[in-house]
Amino acid sequence: MSATDEGFHVYDTTLRDGAQQEGLNLSVVDKLTIARHLDDLGVGYIEGGWPGSNPKDTEFFARARRELSLRNATLAAFGATRRPGVSAADDPLVAALRESEASVVTLVAKSHDRHVELALRTTLDENLAMVSDTVRHLRAEGRRVFLDCEHFFDGVRANRAYALEVVRTAAEAGAEVVVLCDTNGGMLPDWVGEIVADVADQTGARLGIHCHNDTGCAVANSVAAVNAGATHMQGCMNGYGERTGNADLVAVVANLQLKLGHELLPGTSLREASRIAHAVAEVTNIPPSSRQPYVGVSSFAHKAGLHASAIRVDPDLYQHIDPERVGNDMRLLVSEMAGRASIELKGKELGYDLTSDAQQLARITERVKRLEQTGYTFEAADASFDLLLAEEVEGQRPSYFAVESWRVITESSTPADAEALSEATVKLRAAGQRIVVTGEGNGPVNALDHALRQAIERAYPEVEQFRLTDYRVRILDQGHGTDAVIRVLIETSDGKESWVTVGVGHNIVEASWEALLDAVTFGLRRHDVHSPAATA
Amino acid sequence: MSATDEGFHVYDTTLRDGAQQEGLNLSVVDKLTIARHLDDLGVGYIEGGWPGSNPKDTEFFARARRELSLRNATLAAFGATRRPGVSAADDPLVAALRESEASVVTLVAKSHDRHVELALRTTLDENLAMVSDTVRHLRAEGRRVFLDCEHFFDGVRANRAYALEVVRTAAEAGAEVVVLCDTNGGMLPDWVGEIVADVADQTGARLGIHCHNDTGCAVANSVAAVNAGATHMQGCMNGYGERTGNADLVAVVANLQLKLGHELLPGTSLREASRIAHAVAEVTNIPPSSRQPYVGVSSFAHKAGLHASAIRVDPDLYQHIDPERVGNDMRLLVSEMAGRASIELKGKELGYDLTSDAQQLARITERVKRLEQTGYTFEAADASFDLLLAEEVEGQRPSYFAVESWRVITESSTPADAEALSEATVKLRAAGQRIVVTGEGNGPVNALDHALRQAIERAYPEVEQFRLTDYRVRILDQGHGTDAVIRVLIETSDGKESWVTVGVGHNIVEASWEALLDAVTFGLRRHDVHSPAATA
Repeated sequence: MSATDEGFHVYDTTLRDGAQQEGLNLSVVDKLTIARHLDDLGVGYIEGGWPGSNPKDTEFFARARRELSLRNATLAAFGATRRPGVSAADDPLVAALRESEASVVTLVAKSHDRHVELALRTTLDENLAMVSDTVRHLRAEGRRVFLDCEHFFDGVRANRAYALEVVRTAAEAGAEVVVLCDTNGGMLPDWVGEIVADVADQTGARLGIHCHNDTGCAVANSVAAVNAGATHMQGCMNGYGERTGNADLVAVVANLQLKLGHELLPGTSLREASRIAHAVAEVTNIPPSSRQPYVGVSSFAHKAGLHASAIRVDPDLYQHIDPERVGNDMRLLVSEMAGRASIELKGKELGYDLTSDAQQLARITERVKRLEQTGYTFEAADASFDLLLAEEVEGQRPSYFAVESWRVITESSTPADAEALSEATVKLRAAGQRIVVTGEGNGPVNALDHALRQAIERAYPEVEQFRLTDYRVRILDQGHGTDAVIRVLIETSDGKESWVTVGVGHNIVEASWEALLDAVTFGLRRHDVHSPAATA
Repeated sequence: MSATDEGFHVYDTTLRDGAQQEGLNLSVVDKLTIARHLDDLGVGYIEGGWPGSNPKDTEFFARARRELSLRNATLAAFGATRRPGVSAADDPLVAALRESEASVVTLVAKSHDRHVELALRTTLDENLAMVSDTVRHLRAEGRRVFLDCEHFFDGVRANRAYALEVVRTAAEAGAEVVVLCDTNGGMLPDWVGEIVADVADQTGARLGIHCHNDTGCAVANSVAAVNAGATHMQGCMNGYGERTGNADLVAVVANLQLKLGHELLPGTSLREASRIAHAVAEVTNIPPSSRQPYVGVSSFAHKAGLHASAIRVDPDLYQHIDPERVGNDMRLLVSEMAGRASIELKGKELGYDLTSDAQQLARITERVKRLEQTGYTFEAADASFDLLLAEEVEGQRPSYFAVESWRVITESSTPADAEALSEATVKLRAAGQRIVVTGEGNGPVNALDHALRQAIERAYPEVEQFRLTDYRVRILDQGHGTDAVIRVLIETSDGKESWVTVGVGHNIVEASWEALLDAVTFGLRRHDVHSPAATA
């Protein structure tokens, strides 16, 4: 790490401010999963939530203590300065911060005079006392304290002297960093740069930056703040956040690191950025933008056309960075993301050694590329990828049953305003028996799932433990006409572990059926059930 | 318009550079529709395409001459400087630019020395001659010429003197504006500002800016260029474009106009921005980002919570601009976009006077809000909205037939690798007859469409002319579980006009059925077919 960047804070707030995004709902398990991804990316701080404000965030910190072992990151608990008129020690929300046992506490404080009066309904002096008392109390309890100045930039315009006083008060009370927040997101880069430089000059405090994207400038504003002296940068994965979102953490870090020479993430972990950004999107189930800077699947895609040969001779003439530096790939025409190296790595993860047979690896890579072009994804669907590797390496696909046919009927209900009901019939052979089962559901896929599991259960009672725990549908090709390509991801659990499978097709029912078959097959293989086909 | 902004060019390249986006395909009719929207927004220039490079763009200019009457915008034809070693007059691609009859021609030229050598395979001097000759030729033919310097910013770093020479050559030959393009999108705002100021200083040419979003800074870079003296700004609706996209035109204009005091769009047309951005997204069928700066549906949405009363007292403390200035709305909690004013306006468009009865308008607004909360959209689905208004204003919904029941079967095919086939049966009463029809299709919706139209046709032969011309599916609630909400938009045509209807539900089949029913009902009403129910 270069001397200037020693101790720079890359501070992620996906789990707290990012989760404010409309339509984004994270379970405690989701938050733990995302925290592991963030740690892999190498961020320095992960803001886990606001313990005490809701039971989920309190539970997150409790489980994080037991279940998370972070290599790079420190967990931070978010909270507010004490309420007006009570001592910090007596404020139950401050107590919840202590009880979270997080070594870092990030406090939000008002720094805009009118917000103090209108939203807090207290005096400007009492607000300063709230800042000072709460910081001192938590410092005395042995915590490191960062302080977020809410609405800071608008506050400077309304009452610069008061906004500066909040910064000074926090720093004097022992806040390690004072974070200037563009809470309404209305700033432009020149303004941010000027104000950060002014505050640094006037207060001498260590400053951080927290931007929202309401002007489309959150990334540029964050960079401008760092250029002006901020040494702590808050952002969210994939730019999640309320309204237009927070600054996209990966884009800001990549700009600072690859364009401006800062060294912020440890080692080469920025090379994990594309994979991790997509993995987080799989958890939130918000389709990632193909155009997302640095990590989008289209972000280094070229319609080669006339320039194909020039691109081959000197690709750097046509790309602003080498995409490998963020774990992305240049794509010409329709070639998809899978490279041999990533497949080899993924195989290793799943217990397959693909290094010894170069031809085999090439064949698998080609097959994956072909499948990805038609809409498959294996980043999340490990179980389907495992079955594909098993087929290639072992010579045939694990098989426990042979489907003869299936059928699903959806029909109008009586009365007409009730929801339509679906009924599925599955015919298959398993363990020497021919089985015909009918299942019902509130939709065609539910019905098929019920029928399939009932049918298999007779031959393989292990299936009884399997539950469809998540079902995600994505329309991939939103082009005109009825031929849209639909991708279905299904998560199945046996109560202990869970696995994800994928299906693709023009027909949502057929795509779902494909994913259901993989789910059951992988589950039986995982349970070491004897596969008749494998020994046939 | 203020003195400084007199003659500023707001230049849209959605139809040319925006259409380079992976997965974005525009028909000639789509391009004409988008051009009308852009004209409504008040942009000064619409780059329509590259005539001569493909038949579609040539046709676009031919049809635009006959069919487009633009109030604000001037059409520009895009093309390249002449090829090496031929005269501009003899180059067939230059001829195609003349034949487009566009009064403005925007030429792309190389300005990076290595691109001249590697991609054009010619000398630096010949490239200058290509610029000079082509500009002079088109000027002599009476055209205004803008010149895009491709890879300009990287070119300055590689060979500043040569890049400046290209700008000078173009300006001296008569190019009205020389546009500096960050073709690879790797710039940051400070760099753009410095280079634009330097080029202005060194050449005295009128400068434009064209940015891509590879660093997440396209908007900020465009603003920085204007701050440094550029008076021509190129962007795309919704930030469409190759890789990470082009600068989002609306965000740049809104920043310049609402934050920096420029006056760029005529009158109050920026207030149309949200509506037009969404209308363009309906044409491209790329789901708009709810987080898009200024125009996103979440961009002024607040989880009011603790601050609800403060927001009510002084909303400007919680928003960076008044959302009405870009035609957006502040939303608290789940309240959706529909306001009385917009419903009144939309009603007027469709021929309903909703001004006289305030209670009726309030009732309709409430109903639309409720429907929008459950996933309906009426921005594009005019025909479904018309039926809703007819029901409210006339006291009952137009009705031509009574559905008794429907059923659709999807089943596995033989052989197993063929696509699954669907078969639908519809039972209904129309014109006193009970009709039962079965139809087939390559998916459940196709099958239902075939069956429904065959059934209705017996009573209403007009239906024979109706064709399902477009079918779009969007998963709205990508939350966990099988309960995702699905929205279907169906476009139907009678060969002369087309109309769009909407259906929403957990079951794609049921949502599609709803949209199909609206489509047929609206078509019959449009054809002035006697509605038995309306006179019952």
